[in-house]
Amino acid sequence: MSTVLFLHQSLILPRITRALKPSSFSSCFSLSLLRPISHPFSSPAASRASSIPTHDDVDGAAPIAVTERTMIDVNPPRGTRDFLPEDMRLRNWLFQQFREVSRLLSFEEVDFPVLESEALFIRKAGEEITQQLYNFEDKGGRRVVLRPEITPSLARLVIKQGKSVSLPLKWFTIGQCWRYERMTRGRRREHYQWNMDIIGVSRVRAEAELIHALVILFERLGITSADVGIRISSRKVLQALLQTYSIPEHLFTEVFVIVDKLGKITKEEIEKELVSVGVSLDAVKGLVEVLSFKSLTRLEDVLGPNAEAVADLKQLFSLAENYGYSQWIQFDASVVRGLAYYTGIVFEAFDKEGKLRAICGGGRYDRLLSTFGTDDIPACGFGFGDAVIVELLKEKGLVPDLIRQVDDIVFPLDVELEGPASKIVASLRQKGRSVDLVEDKRLKWVFKHAERVNAGRLILVGNSEWQRDLRVFLDTLKFSHHCLLLVLGVLLPSHNLHI
Amino acid sequence: MSTVLFLHQSLILPRITRALKPSSFSSCFSLSLLRPISHPFSSPAASRASSIPTHDDVDGAAPIAVTERTMIDVNPPRGTRDFLPEDMRLRNWLFQQFREVSRLLSFEEVDFPVLESEALFIRKAGEEITQQLYNFEDKGGRRVVLRPEITPSLARLVIKQGKSVSLPLKWFTIGQCWRYERMTRGRRREHYQWNMDIIGVSRVRAEAELIHALVILFERLGITSADVGIRISSRKVLQALLQTYSIPEHLFTEVFVIVDKLGKITKEEIEKELVSVGVSLDAVKGLVEVLSFKSLTRLEDVLGPNAEAVADLKQLFSLAENYGYSQWIQFDASVVRGLAYYTGIVFEAFDKEGKLRAICGGGRYDRLLSTFGTDDIPACGFGFGDAVIVELLKEKGLVPDLIRQVDDIVFPLDVELEGPASKIVASLRQKGRSVDLVEDKRLKWVFKHAERVNAGRLILVGNSEWQRDLRVFLDTLKFSHHCLLLVLGVLLPSHNLHI
Repeated sequence: MSTVLFLHQSLILPRITRALKPSSFSSCFSLSLLRPISHPFSSPAASRASSIPTHDDVDGAAPIAVTERTMIDVNPPRGTRDFLPEDMRLRNWLFQQFREVSRLLSFEEVDFPVLESEALFIRKAGEEITQQLYNFEDKGGRRVVLRPEITPSLARLVIKQGKSVSLPLKWFTIGQCWRYERMTRGRRREHYQWNMDIIGVSRVRAEAELIHALVILFERLGITSADVGIRISSRKVLQALLQTYSIPEHLFTEVFVIVDKLGKITKEEIEKELVSVGVSLDAVKGLVEVLSFKSLTRLEDVLGPNAEAVADLKQLFSLAENYGYSQWIQFDASVVRGLAYYTGIVFEAFDKEGKLRAICGGGRYDRLLSTFGTDDIPACGFGFGDAVIVELLKEKGLVPDLIRQVDDIVFPLDVELEGPASKIVASLRQKGRSVDLVEDKRLKWVFKHAERVNAGRLILVGNSEWQRDLRVFLDTLKFSHHCLLLVLGVLLPSHNLHI
Repeated sequence: MSTVLFLHQSLILPRITRALKPSSFSSCFSLSLLRPISHPFSSPAASRASSIPTHDDVDGAAPIAVTERTMIDVNPPRGTRDFLPEDMRLRNWLFQQFREVSRLLSFEEVDFPVLESEALFIRKAGEEITQQLYNFEDKGGRRVVLRPEITPSLARLVIKQGKSVSLPLKWFTIGQCWRYERMTRGRRREHYQWNMDIIGVSRVRAEAELIHALVILFERLGITSADVGIRISSRKVLQALLQTYSIPEHLFTEVFVIVDKLGKITKEEIEKELVSVGVSLDAVKGLVEVLSFKSLTRLEDVLGPNAEAVADLKQLFSLAENYGYSQWIQFDASVVRGLAYYTGIVFEAFDKEGKLRAICGGGRYDRLLSTFGTDDIPACGFGFGDAVIVELLKEKGLVPDLIRQVDDIVFPLDVELEGPASKIVASLRQKGRSVDLVEDKRLKWVFKHAERVNAGRLILVGNSEWQRDLRVFLDTLKFSHHCLLLVLGVLLPSHNLHI
């Protein structure tokens, strides 16, 4: 007759694993409990496998010895990442936060191919992003690219859908983006990016909603307005200024892209670049002065109260007051953002200690669609990468303890019990419990494993022969009778088990 | 004073939308309720936007008129997909099923770059998959590839982790894979694939667990064993046979790949290919005969009871009995699977009507790691694409009705009310409710929208001026007093609202 042994982790595991520390271990119980189960179908590969040292045997990884064979490169391509289970738990947790905030804002999820037509990303304003394309020719001779950003794909889909969709659209997506950058400053060549976009709303309300999403996210992550701020300006500030200096409109985008380099290259270099595209020295000085403004009043003094830039920004700050997130935002004329297609308000979140790059950035891009050959629709959005925010969370100690969760471990004590064990496993999974079936391991390993994976219960499947041994074993471990009674009370067949 | 109007969808929306059908609409209420709200900050873009016809105005999509501009290609690159919200809901639902089954089996999620080193996928056995690589040279001169499958990346990571991980590993991943195929038979060039792999278990238990995962998934999706079966064989069947004909071992993989084409090309072509790689006509005939076996007893008669192939398969069918999924599986010697690296049991799920390609496929690949230059570890896994299963679910009418869910729609009846509306929106989202803030729309549109997005409540924000109009409006719609009482009872400020 088979017996099922229940061990509830909360009661027993800490004691077991304490008892199983190597020093106290060898004297504890009979050899029969220590031998791994042998199996009639073990192949030669099995013995090789069990000879591979595991975490239990060795601390840390050592180089793999290879004799007379060419080893592949075990690293992912330069600038890319593997996600081990612990990395994946963090990524899933972060993406879940992105999704939950998107749900609160009532956005719908969409997605686009990571491989896009190169034509979508060819722009002539000298942006960094278009100079770092992961582009190539496919076997059909098409110019394709691993997308460096998501907005152009979104615009493409909006155009494609045409009259079949009802505006406004409120769409979000979480996708991987690629840039072929020099591998300096620890930057990778791919990252995941959360995008939220509102298509078809010309009012500043769209920006106010997007910033609300950012604030809700930060608050959910435990970040406060003492840690992070959101800088806001408008492309219309520079537009108005360039107009006063009679700079021709076709130069505007190039000027924005140059001005965005402020802080990355010296002021002198920026001035030189501006002059080289045809901006007068006078205008350059005026630009540089206004870019230093941190006060909306001062901006109003320069541009006048009727300037669109001023009206937009005032409206946004007024809405922010009503939403209740004024303490998160500040006007800062130096915010330009590097993408050529922004036309209005632009914003970026930053860490107030100034250690990290921008956490996210966005803005209004009312003219992107016409660059694709169709009528414009007002639009606004942001991109929020998965890299800087994780750095920040780590720095602030805000990364949650994301541990593996297993409900039950089932371990047949003998190879003859693999049938009953299968029945128990199937029955538990039927009930929605996550079950890790373990075989061919020493009991010591199983207990350690149960602790490592935070198993709720450990179910040892034994037959009547095991009862005496188990009693001895558990006695040796000084188990309370309370637990022991629980252990031996339940008998197979499994469909009668209350497990 | 501002007023908040609550409308609970279950009570009111069906009546409202019935009442708002165009025929009965114009006579129903005052013009003031129909005008879209104008706004002082509306830009010229806004009027252009509102002139774009929406779903309400036109049925279906019409080509976009473009004058004197070059239109981009609005389609995603050939063979790839955009995911509109409804597509994304289906994809998320399916992936959620994959994740839930993986959880029940206690697998951990991992991920790898979609861009991999080409070297991982270069194999010489003539597999279809290695002839359809989406490969190119990156700007640093590296040969890279959009991965056609996930297993080699997983093997790479296992090697990389070396002694730092404890075997067995039970890993799953859901990722996009790419094949540059001719675009025939409606096949795409990318698909998402759910992979489950067990690394470090040589016993057939690993296969039994993986097949358990498949069966649990099918059952969760509403698919029965009358709809779908799982065919099982072992590479060892052919191995044993090739040995009896003294075929040299280095030809085995090539033979497997050729034999896998059975059903895709004619028997004569296969025989010709086999002879051309050096298999004798006698052996070819023997192979073709055994491939037709559907009975394990018949196989045992040919290979003998001690053959590994027979022992493995018997063990698997015995475990299946205990798990309780025997009715799902059947022995079929013709199952070979197209990947070169399988070494033992191979399996595939198929629709019993025989209309579709294989739903998923997998097997044991105990020798993959040594092809990468390191020691082997026994391993076993499957890949499960997102395409065929969705076709099957559609055919069986098993795709659930995945509708958009919004808790509240908030609509300020006047532009002056955008402040109070912001407060309400912030307060509702604070409570975890998903809120769609709507502005600049006619009331008619708002009601239709509320129905379309399945809003739980519609909250109209009005001031005292609106009270009389709303009363008239609601009376016209013959609202019960029960509902009307609900409407006008709640006043701002929003933090006092019980919403």
